[in-house]
Amino acid sequence: MKITIIGLGVIGGSFAMALNALNEHEIYGVDRNKDTLEKALDLGIITKGCTSGDEFIKESDLIIIGLYPSLIIDFLKKNKGNFKDGAIITDVTGIKETFIAEALDIIPEGVDFIFGHPMAGREKRGIDFASKEVFKGANYLLTPHSKNKEANLKLMEEIVLKIGFKKVRKITPKEHDKIISFTSQLPHAIAVALINSDNQEFDTGSFIGDSYRDLTRIANINEELWSELFLGNKENLLKSIEDFEKQLDYIKDAVKYGDIDKLKELFIESGKRREKL
Amino acid sequence: MKITIIGLGVIGGSFAMALNALNEHEIYGVDRNKDTLEKALDLGIITKGCTSGDEFIKESDLIIIGLYPSLIIDFLKKNKGNFKDGAIITDVTGIKETFIAEALDIIPEGVDFIFGHPMAGREKRGIDFASKEVFKGANYLLTPHSKNKEANLKLMEEIVLKIGFKKVRKITPKEHDKIISFTSQLPHAIAVALINSDNQEFDTGSFIGDSYRDLTRIANINEELWSELFLGNKENLLKSIEDFEKQLDYIKDAVKYGDIDKLKELFIESGKRREKL
Repeated sequence: MKITIIGLGVIGGSFAMALNALNEHEIYGVDRNKDTLEKALDLGIITKGCTSGDEFIKESDLIIIGLYPSLIIDFLKKNKGNFKDGAIITDVTGIKETFIAEALDIIPEGVDFIFGHPMAGREKRGIDFASKEVFKGANYLLTPHSKNKEANLKLMEEIVLKIGFKKVRKITPKEHDKIISFTSQLPHAIAVALINSDNQEFDTGSFIGDSYRDLTRIANINEELWSELFLGNKENLLKSIEDFEKQLDYIKDAVKYGDIDKLKELFIESGKRREKL
Repeated sequence: MKITIIGLGVIGGSFAMALNALNEHEIYGVDRNKDTLEKALDLGIITKGCTSGDEFIKESDLIIIGLYPSLIIDFLKKNKGNFKDGAIITDVTGIKETFIAEALDIIPEGVDFIFGHPMAGREKRGIDFASKEVFKGANYLLTPHSKNKEANLKLMEEIVLKIGFKKVRKITPKEHDKIISFTSQLPHAIAVALINSDNQEFDTGSFIGDSYRDLTRIANINEELWSELFLGNKENLLKSIEDFEKQLDYIKDAVKYGDIDKLKELFIESGKRREKL
């Protein structure tokens, strides 16, 4: 297949690396940053690179859009005449419901948009932090719609399993955004709030163990991407934060009133859930 | 030196392993569980083991108490006649202020209690999860008091650096409990609340990435130990939870009112703090 990757950041770049390692496809890269293209060419993970992808897209069987959500609709509008008949488009964004209908309205008949979400990433941005290792063992989510061709969904599933993902799950966009607000966006909100609540009275680094280190790793967050993801999934995220706050209140009350039995009950429950995970 | 370790759980067991590897001391182990003693003897990490430590303690230059906080005072009362003159006692508990005065009242003149806190551990309990590797690169906190001998503090510092800790910090018990409520107890409260707030509508495991995995690792929590630590540091922990909630509210409000600039500002701040860590 001829594959064009739009945006060679952490995720797009990692796709290029993982697909290139298969030695089965011709891979083109599009990025507005010339240094990024040069690096990708130097690494040999793309055959050709360009800041504007029109020509690549015209030839491509699969187009992987590694852009921020807000840029996808613009990209589709700009390129709707370039997609070849029978082409597959896929994305990698962490929210789905808001833009699927809009995207499907833009793309021509005969082009199949398969919406996907690799549950893998890095705190840092840019091709320098791309690596095919980030996909190893990770979950991949697909949110199929009625216009998707079964054969294309199957092909997409095969590709992501081949490049290292462990498990592909299909769910509706509505379900996707609901569960992702809990498993992905809420942890990021928590990590940010935790490190920002440090009153910095002490040199914190001397007083931490693995727990603080683990819980704040993702506080080093890409503010452009995650502000979009948070605002694009507003209602679900607010509900997830509130559910979390309710649980934190149980702990707070148990501490406040010295209720050791309640505390133990909450800890036993959390332990069981973590073991099961 | 002759060293007796009281309680061969994760921390006590790890101390036995790390000290044994130095090949410099004679190490005795005390545990109420006979299987644990047998395992420690089989591993060769203690020379002798016993369920009651009276005889060992009488000979020991250093006694490391690896017990839960609530058991330490009882242990001291029971053994106050057994400590030899000039002996050093140390503990490994995660809270300090509440029991230091009480402990110092019990031990005889001529015995030096150095209060310590290795910032290392495991989610699981028991000698099966002990390992000298858990100490590697970790922080060690000491909370000296006016009766401590300078030479003993220095000796203790040397020992913990020798067995793998990277950095020893000395602070007052009051400061210790304040910063620890933030860097250790708050993360545990958050991890527990996070996983307990899962409404379990989906099979969560299929929809998680590293972020959820990292933030819930410590939700697999030893309920006996941590309920004691939480309740023994009540005021500080409540303050830390409230400070955290304030920060989470900033995020919640920014999401609710679509304030993308505020969100980015919070993310940039958290990113800077994490980079600095």
